[in-house]
Amino acid sequence: MKITISALVENKPGVLTRISGLFARRAFNIDSLTAGPTENPEISRMTIVATQAAHPLEQIEKQLHKLVNVIRVTEMDPDNSVGRELMLIKVHAPPNKRIEIFDIVNTFRGKVIDVSRSTLVAEVTGDTDKLRAFQELMVNYGIVEVARTGKVALSRGR
Amino acid sequence: MKITISALVENKPGVLTRISGLFARRAFNIDSLTAGPTENPEISRMTIVATQAAHPLEQIEKQLHKLVNVIRVTEMDPDNSVGRELMLIKVHAPPNKRIEIFDIVNTFRGKVIDVSRSTLVAEVTGDTDKLRAFQELMVNYGIVEVARTGKVALSRGR
Repeated sequence: MKITISALVENKPGVLTRISGLFARRAFNIDSLTAGPTENPEISRMTIVATQAAHPLEQIEKQLHKLVNVIRVTEMDPDNSVGRELMLIKVHAPPNKRIEIFDIVNTFRGKVIDVSRSTLVAEVTGDTDKLRAFQELMVNYGIVEVARTGKVALSRGR
Repeated sequence: MKITISALVENKPGVLTRISGLFARRAFNIDSLTAGPTENPEISRMTIVATQAAHPLEQIEKQLHKLVNVIRVTEMDPDNSVGRELMLIKVHAPPNKRIEIFDIVNTFRGKVIDVSRSTLVAEVTGDTDKLRAFQELMVNYGIVEVARTGKVALSRGR
């Protein structure tokens, strides 16, 4: 089972290391992790998508709360939150294939952000399923490189 | 000076901890970090934006290459790469302010992905400056929460 955890942490060196170490020791496999700024420059938000292993989640939440520099830990409820991820993908795009690829990118409400003689780079956002579907379509053209941010999530408004 | 490092690593527990520990020990402050899947399920891509401190970058690159499970480390050249970041932002949006906010979101080529009675959640992608500009405009309405993925980058096509 995949779980999404959102943690507000103080923006200090070593915090990331302690948190990822905690997950590794508890045998949670981290599928994706993002750590970025918030509206407050002293606070970062980490979003972790992990596959649950032997240990119950409550245990790791308790451990997280005990770490210094951790302000708040929330497990995101899939029914009551919105999650998005960003993917950059570079594909082979010779001139005679470009229009086809542009059409697919537009269908996915993505953007082409770089074009060279033989490749292009597209940017697409969405949930994991949407990105997977887009990536599968790009396989036909030949994927050169993929970079994905991992998911971020916010609770829906009440 | 801010630098962007892209590392391809084996998707194994503990890799993230070792890499972030290396940055922390060398007194590089990590501004953002993302770790997500690539086109190969056994390989993850980490993108790290860090502020350079006392140690020269070559030193940390060498150390990274020495870590097991690290396949390739590249410093992204700002002139020869495209970088993007995703931001989710929840703002106060009473009915009489909604149209105004929708207009700003559209101008930034973003999307409103959730609306409640008194708030909305918008999704915007771009470089750090664009996201900063958008966030500054949202301050007027009252920011409730922000989640940012941190930057991912790919080299431009040749």
